[in-house]
Amino acid sequence: MTGTLTIVGVGPGRPELMTPAASAAIAEATDLIGYGPYLDRVATSHPGQIRHASDNRVELDRARHALSLASDGRHVAVVSGGDPGVFAMAAAVFEAVEAGPLEWRDLDIRVEPGVTAMLAAAAEVGAPLGGDFCAISLSDNLKSWTTIRRRLEAAAAADFVIALYNPLSKARPHQLGEAFALLRQIKPPSTVVVMVRAAGSGDVRRIITTLGEVDPDKADMRTLVLIGSTATRLIARDGKSPFVYTLRREVEGGA
Amino acid sequence: MTGTLTIVGVGPGRPELMTPAASAAIAEATDLIGYGPYLDRVATSHPGQIRHASDNRVELDRARHALSLASDGRHVAVVSGGDPGVFAMAAAVFEAVEAGPLEWRDLDIRVEPGVTAMLAAAAEVGAPLGGDFCAISLSDNLKSWTTIRRRLEAAAAADFVIALYNPLSKARPHQLGEAFALLRQIKPPSTVVVMVRAAGSGDVRRIITTLGEVDPDKADMRTLVLIGSTATRLIARDGKSPFVYTLRREVEGGA
Repeated sequence: MTGTLTIVGVGPGRPELMTPAASAAIAEATDLIGYGPYLDRVATSHPGQIRHASDNRVELDRARHALSLASDGRHVAVVSGGDPGVFAMAAAVFEAVEAGPLEWRDLDIRVEPGVTAMLAAAAEVGAPLGGDFCAISLSDNLKSWTTIRRRLEAAAAADFVIALYNPLSKARPHQLGEAFALLRQIKPPSTVVVMVRAAGSGDVRRIITTLGEVDPDKADMRTLVLIGSTATRLIARDGKSPFVYTLRREVEGGA
Repeated sequence: MTGTLTIVGVGPGRPELMTPAASAAIAEATDLIGYGPYLDRVATSHPGQIRHASDNRVELDRARHALSLASDGRHVAVVSGGDPGVFAMAAAVFEAVEAGPLEWRDLDIRVEPGVTAMLAAAAEVGAPLGGDFCAISLSDNLKSWTTIRRRLEAAAAADFVIALYNPLSKARPHQLGEAFALLRQIKPPSTVVVMVRAAGSGDVRRIITTLGEVDPDKADMRTLVLIGSTATRLIARDGKSPFVYTLRREVEGGA
């Protein structure tokens, strides 16, 4: 068995944010598999390269397809947005490996890391992840809303900076508003909130506001939401958007 | 004032993990500033480019130096390991901006994101960050050990995957052992623990073990420690290191 499978993170959007290692893994593949919008970001590198674009949101099916191809001796790149290990395709591939035929465990499976959305979003406004932080997906497709609430409460009480992935979608329009309402019971209304849409793309949109005033309807599935800790601050600038950063040290009277 | 300052993440080690955007920012700079070992990773790109290597661990001094140069009209790249916004130079630069002369706020200051150590470490073993996770620096140089303990307890109780940066150093050799002891009071001894030294470099070393058996003396300042959630699993392989991943869905009876 000489097939290989690499789960490749293509970064947040701009090609300049994709690592050379990720580009090389894509260039060497015989088969590219991915959700259409991610596949569209990468060029076909040689004439024999086959593209398996999918509008299929069922990650496990895509993972099994990729593993089957690798098992047939193909060199497969699973194309994933951001970093493949953060709310993306890598965990689905390993879940399929564990549940699949034993020979899949012998495949040469690698992960090529990338710049995940939260890092790109933070960089767009300054350094809001400058202290301890956590990343929570608000999607309750695979976990209960009770678990999500518990994690939000714990993160707020322990004064982490919080990055929210998958803040809402058409199928679940109310999660982000509920998350903000919950956080307002624990954190002061002056808490800095940043919403960055399409971070690290050519089409970025930034909103810098507070927990007391944030409007969840301004977010969509391409938005990364950052909620500051007590040490997250704004630096005002004349005629320009403020810088946002989190002090590395603690703040007197911080939660 | 036409100077610029870009805080550039050079990634975890291998040049292939540095984004083209980061490489371009470094190539265009008139001045490179950074802690020696990070500066050593990037080549001088043109004859006039000045390198300000530093063995100075005081990040704020380096930040002020960079801002002064930019203020004099230079094009400065602050070279930072991993992602500059995660336990690295970006927050120090903005802290210096806030405390410094008002004209520093008018400078064109940008952050070029990079692959942070936790993403590279996760990719080395599979997809351990596949669920909600948090990142905590164990350094108590700038925050109290009480705060660190509180965050570890909150993260464990809410069943986050936990990434520990700066696990220990010669000056503080006991933090990691104390963190493991604390986590053992909350999480089962079978919890998966991964220690990856020099992730994303040519010289990586991986330890895959459990919270019950982990030896903190096997870590150093270049080690990234990952502590699994109840959904973090191993996939055994014949004659090879197991894959480690975190299920995207919840586990029955999980904490």
